[in-house]
Amino acid sequence: MSEHEVKIPARQARSYAIRIGSDILGSVWPQMDAEFPKRGKFVVTDRNLASAGHLDRLLGQRQVATFVIDPPGETSKHVNTVISIVEAMEKAYLGRDSLIVALGGGTVGDIAGFAAAIFKRGVPVVQIPTTTVAQADSAVGGKTGVDSSISKNAFGAFWHPAAVYIDVATLNTLDERQFRAGLVESVKHALIADSQYFDFLEDKLNDVLERKLDVLEELARYNCRIKGNVVEADPNEQNQRRMLNYGHTIGHAVEAASGFELLHGEAIAIGIIAAGMIEIELQLGRPDRLDRIRRILEKLGVPVKLPHNLAEDELIDLMKRDKKAVNKWPRFVLISEIGGVFCRQGQWAVEVDPDVVAKVLQKL
Amino acid sequence: MSEHEVKIPARQARSYAIRIGSDILGSVWPQMDAEFPKRGKFVVTDRNLASAGHLDRLLGQRQVATFVIDPPGETSKHVNTVISIVEAMEKAYLGRDSLIVALGGGTVGDIAGFAAAIFKRGVPVVQIPTTTVAQADSAVGGKTGVDSSISKNAFGAFWHPAAVYIDVATLNTLDERQFRAGLVESVKHALIADSQYFDFLEDKLNDVLERKLDVLEELARYNCRIKGNVVEADPNEQNQRRMLNYGHTIGHAVEAASGFELLHGEAIAIGIIAAGMIEIELQLGRPDRLDRIRRILEKLGVPVKLPHNLAEDELIDLMKRDKKAVNKWPRFVLISEIGGVFCRQGQWAVEVDPDVVAKVLQKL
Repeated sequence: MSEHEVKIPARQARSYAIRIGSDILGSVWPQMDAEFPKRGKFVVTDRNLASAGHLDRLLGQRQVATFVIDPPGETSKHVNTVISIVEAMEKAYLGRDSLIVALGGGTVGDIAGFAAAIFKRGVPVVQIPTTTVAQADSAVGGKTGVDSSISKNAFGAFWHPAAVYIDVATLNTLDERQFRAGLVESVKHALIADSQYFDFLEDKLNDVLERKLDVLEELARYNCRIKGNVVEADPNEQNQRRMLNYGHTIGHAVEAASGFELLHGEAIAIGIIAAGMIEIELQLGRPDRLDRIRRILEKLGVPVKLPHNLAEDELIDLMKRDKKAVNKWPRFVLISEIGGVFCRQGQWAVEVDPDVVAKVLQKL
Repeated sequence: MSEHEVKIPARQARSYAIRIGSDILGSVWPQMDAEFPKRGKFVVTDRNLASAGHLDRLLGQRQVATFVIDPPGETSKHVNTVISIVEAMEKAYLGRDSLIVALGGGTVGDIAGFAAAIFKRGVPVVQIPTTTVAQADSAVGGKTGVDSSISKNAFGAFWHPAAVYIDVATLNTLDERQFRAGLVESVKHALIADSQYFDFLEDKLNDVLERKLDVLEELARYNCRIKGNVVEADPNEQNQRRMLNYGHTIGHAVEAASGFELLHGEAIAIGIIAAGMIEIELQLGRPDRLDRIRRILEKLGVPVKLPHNLAEDELIDLMKRDKKAVNKWPRFVLISEIGGVFCRQGQWAVEVDPDVVAKVLQKL
């Protein structure tokens, strides 16, 4: 048997811009045309965004081929939606020199980002996130994915956006529960990376909840800086990027056990409290730190206790089946201080004794 | 509006091995287990390969989750097949630490490679090509793609294999027409890159057609070296890789105009003759060179003339809609000598006056 080696050359570093402002939706299109002049554009959005007038604000009088996801939300985050989008692009005579514009929340960004990753072996995507969770988290970082008929995120790709536009004024049409739940990812960012940001959140939370645009812009800047730095250090989630899963190990189990009755951010809030209680058990933190965190989450109006109808056994069982589990038990991201993740032997997610987790769940 | 830049770091160079031998299928699995010890393996193949006994030779007594594409061939190269594969992998409890093994021709490699690219944001694929065209061409280089209900290769990704195993003994079960048509890509490789390889083909063609294993191994080594070098220089088809399209601009049009009655290699043979005639018109080559090329293709038993039922107008029309066309007219890869592509101002595909093309088609 003879052997021949094929080298795959290094891929050069590159970068993309996140532009943040208020009421900027109407000026995004000319900027995109200047930045991507030769690309045929195709918009993916959902019925909510169209009804709220954001699609009209983006397009103005322009005639642009558009796919409106209907119904909006998780049920449409299915590979069949991606197939419909690709076929709609073909019917609009778009080819490999096209560009997809994703206008919407995390679901729209995931669907449109994945469609861009696989259309004709990949075309650029511009993300225009319109929810607190998408602006803080999912629009930056390049993770895309859709569900199969069997499980969540069965299909996906790492596909970094070519540009991101954040118009905080689009948050004005978001319903109160979604708005507040999405802010939990902002609290998470502060906890893992920036104590000054945590002080800012404590200080300005009333203004945030009143949706004051200048404060929302400041919030977006903090989030993008933190998420951007983590993604830069570990774009394909080899290790350090796992810190973004703070509160998510128990949070995901809670979300699933609630039958997705709880919003993602609401479940993560409970997961953050659980992580804080584990930190106390492991003497990584004192109760006063957790009290501070609990207060800010209570002020957001998200749950900080396990709902009565969720059984601890079921949560443990769900955690054993966590996709990141090793030998049927997941690792946990923990903090050693507000703004600093506990890192042991170079690992950003550490082992925690199942007994400790069981004890915490009972108290929760 | 404020702006924040996110850097996407460079990706390191890496490499993969192509191992070439005769009757090696039975020893591939232990090698894969050694190279990828912790990955759950999943085999994608088709009914022809299973019937020919190649699947049994690969697996031995091992129980391995397998997806058998049925019917084999182009009709199954559809996104729906990829969805079925992903759902079969989920039912087999495979996750992001799995590996797909593609055993088959170009269609199997394309389907399985694309499934690997998008399953759980990407898992490795090992390619085991079993046809002359896949061993010479498609198994190396990382291009994957499947069709939508509207057009060919609507979905796809660049996804380099983690390893390639070429067992030339698998060619023994290939039918004569497929075997011969697939050899046209070998002639193409010689024409664009290696005059010594062309001499070898002229010299050894009888042994190749008798499927003598040592000569087929030598052939595979030439092909992998040439294809590997081109892919290394331009992994994502920015420019130089286009030289692999020698004979393909007119060839693709002929293939489509025949309603895919002609095999890919058969259509490319006609395209290679057409390219040679264009070279004569442009004084890039003399008729004796083209005679040499025609003789080897005739000996392969593939067509070297346009079938009577194909109209030149239709071919011109199809070329205008070529996916690589610029301003509705494609560029052509031409050679200036056997083993050397004509490169003008750094471009490996050059403009040719439509009148010249029309004249050549009339003569063809």
